[in-house]
Amino acid sequence: MENFSFRDFRQQFPILTEQVNGQALIYFDNAATTQKPQCVIDSYQDYYQRCNANVHRASHALSTMATMDYEKARSSVKNFINANTEQEVIWTKGSTESINLVAQSWGRSSLKAGDEIVLSYCAHHANIVPWQLVAEQTGAKIKLLALNENGVIATEQLEQVIGERTKIVCVAHISNVIGKINPVADIIRVAKRFQALTLIDGAQAIAHIPVDVTALGCDFYVFSAHKMYGPTGVGVLYGKQELLDKMPPYQGGGEMIKSVSFDHTTFNTLPHKFEAGTPNIAGIIAFGAAIDFLNQQPCRALLDYENRLRDYCFTQLVTVPGLAFIVEAAPDIPVFSFTLAEHHNHDVAAALDSVGVAIRAGHHCAMPLMSYLQLDGCLRLSLSAYNSFAEVDYAVTALQRISQEKLSVKSADSRVIAPANTQTIKPINKSLKVADIQAIFAKAKSWDSKHREIMLLGKALPRLSNEEKTAQALISGCESHAWLQSFQAPNGVFQFKADSDAKIIRGLLAIILAAVNQKTAAQIRAFDMDGYFAELGLLQHLSPSRGNGVRAIVKKIYQAVGVQ
Amino acid sequence: MENFSFRDFRQQFPILTEQVNGQALIYFDNAATTQKPQCVIDSYQDYYQRCNANVHRASHALSTMATMDYEKARSSVKNFINANTEQEVIWTKGSTESINLVAQSWGRSSLKAGDEIVLSYCAHHANIVPWQLVAEQTGAKIKLLALNENGVIATEQLEQVIGERTKIVCVAHISNVIGKINPVADIIRVAKRFQALTLIDGAQAIAHIPVDVTALGCDFYVFSAHKMYGPTGVGVLYGKQELLDKMPPYQGGGEMIKSVSFDHTTFNTLPHKFEAGTPNIAGIIAFGAAIDFLNQQPCRALLDYENRLRDYCFTQLVTVPGLAFIVEAAPDIPVFSFTLAEHHNHDVAAALDSVGVAIRAGHHCAMPLMSYLQLDGCLRLSLSAYNSFAEVDYAVTALQRISQEKLSVKSADSRVIAPANTQTIKPINKSLKVADIQAIFAKAKSWDSKHREIMLLGKALPRLSNEEKTAQALISGCESHAWLQSFQAPNGVFQFKADSDAKIIRGLLAIILAAVNQKTAAQIRAFDMDGYFAELGLLQHLSPSRGNGVRAIVKKIYQAVGVQ
Repeated sequence: MENFSFRDFRQQFPILTEQVNGQALIYFDNAATTQKPQCVIDSYQDYYQRCNANVHRASHALSTMATMDYEKARSSVKNFINANTEQEVIWTKGSTESINLVAQSWGRSSLKAGDEIVLSYCAHHANIVPWQLVAEQTGAKIKLLALNENGVIATEQLEQVIGERTKIVCVAHISNVIGKINPVADIIRVAKRFQALTLIDGAQAIAHIPVDVTALGCDFYVFSAHKMYGPTGVGVLYGKQELLDKMPPYQGGGEMIKSVSFDHTTFNTLPHKFEAGTPNIAGIIAFGAAIDFLNQQPCRALLDYENRLRDYCFTQLVTVPGLAFIVEAAPDIPVFSFTLAEHHNHDVAAALDSVGVAIRAGHHCAMPLMSYLQLDGCLRLSLSAYNSFAEVDYAVTALQRISQEKLSVKSADSRVIAPANTQTIKPINKSLKVADIQAIFAKAKSWDSKHREIMLLGKALPRLSNEEKTAQALISGCESHAWLQSFQAPNGVFQFKADSDAKIIRGLLAIILAAVNQKTAAQIRAFDMDGYFAELGLLQHLSPSRGNGVRAIVKKIYQAVGVQ
Repeated sequence: MENFSFRDFRQQFPILTEQVNGQALIYFDNAATTQKPQCVIDSYQDYYQRCNANVHRASHALSTMATMDYEKARSSVKNFINANTEQEVIWTKGSTESINLVAQSWGRSSLKAGDEIVLSYCAHHANIVPWQLVAEQTGAKIKLLALNENGVIATEQLEQVIGERTKIVCVAHISNVIGKINPVADIIRVAKRFQALTLIDGAQAIAHIPVDVTALGCDFYVFSAHKMYGPTGVGVLYGKQELLDKMPPYQGGGEMIKSVSFDHTTFNTLPHKFEAGTPNIAGIIAFGAAIDFLNQQPCRALLDYENRLRDYCFTQLVTVPGLAFIVEAAPDIPVFSFTLAEHHNHDVAAALDSVGVAIRAGHHCAMPLMSYLQLDGCLRLSLSAYNSFAEVDYAVTALQRISQEKLSVKSADSRVIAPANTQTIKPINKSLKVADIQAIFAKAKSWDSKHREIMLLGKALPRLSNEEKTAQALISGCESHAWLQSFQAPNGVFQFKADSDAKIIRGLLAIILAAVNQKTAAQIRAFDMDGYFAELGLLQHLSPSRGNGVRAIVKKIYQAVGVQ
């Protein structure tokens, strides 16, 4: 077996030398997207500086060069997954679009009332919602494959769930939360017995195990470039040629036609039939560079390293007090999902972020799986071959500290903060003012200490009663919930109360309320919230993400006072 | 008015210092895609080296940075087109997808039999085929707006074509072939009178005239980043918020949902509702850089330069003997479409390419317009503000030479080429051998001389009779037609005859036939066609493009002899 040089491999990813929040970046969110090697980044530079042109359509040298590089990438993908021909490799913008293409092109034209689509409880939303949409459009029904105690699709039930009415079975090769290989060979075998098609979501598998679509015998296989060291905005739909040939086009436009007239339009042959419009040429060529990069690695040795790292990480995570894996069995790929007792997932992720470790908290686009496991969400730590054993140690130590210290501070409620000026209405909230907040953060220089101050402020924020947490007051974020109650006094002055299930959000709410409470609409309107957060060095928590609830709360405050 | 420095502007586009075919590149195919300034190229480097992460979904610093840059690009687009809110700016992969989104989401859920969709004869395929697909799905009918003698949608007919049954009117702001501004304000006004929606295809307009969607009052406006100095794989759908709010989702997946369960899924708010899956994050941020770049230019002075260049180019093209514009009036943007008497479009484009000038030949994804104008296709020369007056002079001089010299060679049919070996069957074709071809090209060093040799070989290739040009023998390319007849002698030896309407394709066919004629299937199979073309320095003409007919002919030959 060829050697895998971890150092050489890692060196090719320039972002890994970056610092975040004053700490060396430890990127453990690889299941969401991987980082990119320099050769993939350079591919953009090379393409745009050397041969940028529209493909397939022009008779000049640049276009020819662009077309050749573009189609070479298709050949590389064909070989990488062992498809039969390049015609079976359709470019999309990602796994999600690949599945939508099949659901709408094949599904909407083939399915009818009474037909069954078989999915599984461990599916990503991308392999659920497109099928719900087409089921509603056609009257087909969705049936579900249950999971065994290891979080893997149980094989015993296959014959009960898949049957004569089943037209397609769509399952993840590996769940993005559970990280275990599903028995896709068995599933495909049973589906074939009933002449049902199979679609395998390979978004996670493609980066971690060898994939051979011909050996698998599936009808469709989908994946995204950005989860396998390639760029964003590029995905693949593999489909068996005879199937793709029969399917109607998905999107209409240039390139996918043979001839167009207002009387009669004829469609192009594969793969162009499914590729309307100017494609993501630069991205696809960069994806080709990513495949070349992967082909240059000693595949078995790289996977062996990844497996050793996975096993090590598992044994280390087990040592963290209060850490509970969402399923007990060790994962097949280095994706670990867990919760930490008495800690909100968002708080753990934020605490890790404050020491440079990027992991993910939330439902991981797998809400039905969360419900199935009776969880609100979980933490996910996902590794790549550029991650080190030392990084695992650092993150696990941080997790141990978070778990044990419970923030190791004396009760923040006892902290005395002098009001900055006298109040004119009875305070519903603690009377923190902007000046108080500014004073606190002026002393907190590092992100770590800022993070601690936010947590302290969160502790000090009065809680809403359960009665006050009404549906109307609720703002659901991706990773946490928040509630806002507003009151306006007869003199026009507003008073807000807010709460959240995540401590860090509570801290940020305290900071926001300091800026808006006991003010009139005009005063609130005049206040520069973004500037305030920027000055405090907290702008990242006001990012436009709909996820963390803070921006949504700010928006709800603005709506309450009539600010656009 | 601020000054526009042509030199400073041009310097920012690194590809413009490249050489193609041994000549300085003159890129006149800007309507297909523009070149990219260094800041757009650098944006990829910056993003992937500094903050690559999935957006909206994580609670770590990289994701926050990525999300902020990503949403900042949306704000930039909102301001650039003067939309009301960021919620009205939906990211797509290009204009084509934007139109498909409207056709399927709005159209498929709203249109019914008897409803009318109004298009125009000057539409790009992207603004035709999606409507044909949804018309077929819903029973709606397509009606057409005719053009006046200037190639512009005629206003006199608006009230006759748009009426009570019209549900949507979809027109190009500026046709990609004619380059003239359509009377969109009038069209929108008449459509509104009948409560019909309007969709404006701004793919060409956005790069050349200021666009204000609020002032226009259209319901939808679409464009692509790659035609306005931005990257490939990014497009915009602008839609009025109240309309987008009501429309059902297009693609399902992560990000576009609020909650997912197998019982009930609810969808996210705008713009996320229409943005399923991980988006083209790096591309969208690079598009933001392109908008910043445009905002930094002195807009009026830049457009003034472009207009002077346009006017100059028009007056110069008029001087080329035999050049006929497809419509007489001068264009509003620097897009010129024409034919050259007694020259196949493909031959003119190839001749220009051989001296470094990139223009486009074909139907320009506007086949119905070609039929309307009774043309097979045309040449299109399209400029950008980085093009110079000197480049125009060079290209026009080359066109004049092409037009006048008619290749200025003595009849190539009289050239004597000694057969390389004795023939065993009666030759149907001239008995050129591979060795002859190699000898010819060994002497031709520059692309210019290679191009001349190809044209000579083309002249020497015997023509097929009209009877031999059967439907079965025809292979239709994007820019030219080709025909192939094959015969197999009892001893297994093959003989092929081929022809094309483009001289350059005839030349390439002569080269191909030299390699396959009078050979058995095994010999043909054993012959390395790609290597042969590479050795001759002609590989660009064997590009996988389905456009030029050569690859299609090779494929047909392989099929005839049973090569996979």
